[in-house]
Amino acid sequence: MRATVMRGGRLVVDDMADPAPGPGQVLVRTLACGICGSDLHALRHGDRMVEMGREAVAADADAAAFTPTLMDLDRDVVMGHEFAAEVVELGADTFNCHVGDVVVSIPIVLDVTGVHPVGYSNVFPGGYGELMVLSDPLALEVPNGLDARQAALTEPMAVGVHAVNRSGISAGSSAVVLGCGPVGLAVIAALRLHGVESIVATDFSAGRRRLATIMGAPEVVDPRQEQAIDAWRRIGGFKESGPLTIFEAVGVPGMLDDAMRMAPRDAHIMVVGVCMEPDTIRPMRGVARELTIGFALGYDPMEFADTLRRIAEGELDVAPLITGSVPVEGVAGAFDALADPDLHAKILVEPGASSAPL
Amino acid sequence: MRATVMRGGRLVVDDMADPAPGPGQVLVRTLACGICGSDLHALRHGDRMVEMGREAVAADADAAAFTPTLMDLDRDVVMGHEFAAEVVELGADTFNCHVGDVVVSIPIVLDVTGVHPVGYSNVFPGGYGELMVLSDPLALEVPNGLDARQAALTEPMAVGVHAVNRSGISAGSSAVVLGCGPVGLAVIAALRLHGVESIVATDFSAGRRRLATIMGAPEVVDPRQEQAIDAWRRIGGFKESGPLTIFEAVGVPGMLDDAMRMAPRDAHIMVVGVCMEPDTIRPMRGVARELTIGFALGYDPMEFADTLRRIAEGELDVAPLITGSVPVEGVAGAFDALADPDLHAKILVEPGASSAPL
Repeated sequence: MRATVMRGGRLVVDDMADPAPGPGQVLVRTLACGICGSDLHALRHGDRMVEMGREAVAADADAAAFTPTLMDLDRDVVMGHEFAAEVVELGADTFNCHVGDVVVSIPIVLDVTGVHPVGYSNVFPGGYGELMVLSDPLALEVPNGLDARQAALTEPMAVGVHAVNRSGISAGSSAVVLGCGPVGLAVIAALRLHGVESIVATDFSAGRRRLATIMGAPEVVDPRQEQAIDAWRRIGGFKESGPLTIFEAVGVPGMLDDAMRMAPRDAHIMVVGVCMEPDTIRPMRGVARELTIGFALGYDPMEFADTLRRIAEGELDVAPLITGSVPVEGVAGAFDALADPDLHAKILVEPGASSAPL
Repeated sequence: MRATVMRGGRLVVDDMADPAPGPGQVLVRTLACGICGSDLHALRHGDRMVEMGREAVAADADAAAFTPTLMDLDRDVVMGHEFAAEVVELGADTFNCHVGDVVVSIPIVLDVTGVHPVGYSNVFPGGYGELMVLSDPLALEVPNGLDARQAALTEPMAVGVHAVNRSGISAGSSAVVLGCGPVGLAVIAALRLHGVESIVATDFSAGRRRLATIMGAPEVVDPRQEQAIDAWRRIGGFKESGPLTIFEAVGVPGMLDDAMRMAPRDAHIMVVGVCMEPDTIRPMRGVARELTIGFALGYDPMEFADTLRRIAEGELDVAPLITGSVPVEGVAGAFDALADPDLHAKILVEPGASSAPL
């Protein structure tokens, strides 16, 4: 099959052997796969990602069997973990999928050797290639005839749903969302679904601010014009019930300390932006105002399934987030294009489609 | 009155005017006052403490009336906020105290200009002087004939009670306590009162490790011999219910990142050590294992009252923590002596007592 491969820290297009479904697995043809910021990070800081994964395995020695295997950066990796795909072949002992089903799945495959992350694995290619192997019991059929392109956004939107759930924010509270990239936008959408209506979102990019409004943030500011916390105070966010929750969805050094600086007493800061570098904070800020900092990663299978249902039933309109589409050969160019936040939110890789130019 | 005064970043003994109780206030004679690590910090990093206080006031502009006033380091400050005292004079409009009562109080005085911290104020001297003014309605009479020296430990023990409450740890879970200074020891005691029995405590000092055992930690290790998390795994802490809670009670740069490094998935890190300096963490550690970091400061009045009751009723034996006593003239020397963790936990200032040598 054709695939864009991460090889030696670069993206190259190559032909590779088709993956073969083992027992309990299905072979699928990638219909659409979103390019995720984590993949941009992985290309640049893959070594740190693996190091952190290794440390996490060590820290959870008691649960090692449930910890996904780690990729070896010296070997090929086909990334892409935000996918919708069509089932083309069933392995042995499958019971859930049928050939022709359009499915999404949490990007995890189980086999007798353990748990493997689809898209960050040397063995299980992700959606930047034409074919993938998925776990039959984990695949969810896309309902209501939902377009596969939109179904592919189940994964990133589930990240927002999980971050909101994990923050413990209650309906009727207020939130500040720092950064309106795909993660920040998913958080905004999830906050609205969660019953949080007092939301201030900030981003330097006018294009992203526009999307933040579309996704449901009633107050969107340019931090060069007004600080997020000033906007929150201006719209009376402090009058809402419960402490403020600040979602840090930028993920560059200094943002966490900045969130702590602005946070009122008892505020909850949820870190959803992935800062790969060491970062400096002033703990006294946390002490003086008894802040809580939470970190969110991924989602659980129920959150994933619930997100798919909400998209398919029209509760969550993800169409505005899709700003481009490329064939397998266009992945590297799309990585570059994503550097301009004004132009793009989510670019889909569509191996089978005759894609429009970016 | 005689007092040890913080003046120009140094401690000096001086005579000063007796404070006078205003309406709703009482004049008290200091019986015993603990020397707190925060006071050592204030002497060294008072400017940062004031800066953080100023920032907290700004961050909570909507609640400014409830925010304690800030000290001016260019003027005299009599520190000391862990006190027991005898009421010697009643101001106007008092209803709670009587002359001769032995009382403790949260170190806050209210007047028509606002809320003032006793011991970190230019107007309200703390327990390193012979006399203080307290708020009549906030004073709690020491019950059961409890010795004033032990009653003075209500404040630091309440800090531990609050940190444990705020952590959300449930009875039957497990905890790691990094650092067995007065705060770490108070956390250990509070964990036991809270029904947490699987506790690993660590400290470099043999003296402090001894006290950790006395306060109720069943497993106490020297981090040069065994890492806290290894000890936790060795004693089967992972088999207890709920995620692990790690109390960071050291408060020097690097400790928070170290706690994040060792934390298993879903762990809760409670920061109770006051790190005055900027500190570097690796946010990816938090993301990879979905950690939560909480910060605790002080206690609420109910926690304070409950701690006094528990000490007075013998549920919480604080006597082993008292390792020395000095007159007003001995405060500066006691600050120096506290630099040796093997010798001292809590040194009391007893202005009226003929103190034993340190």
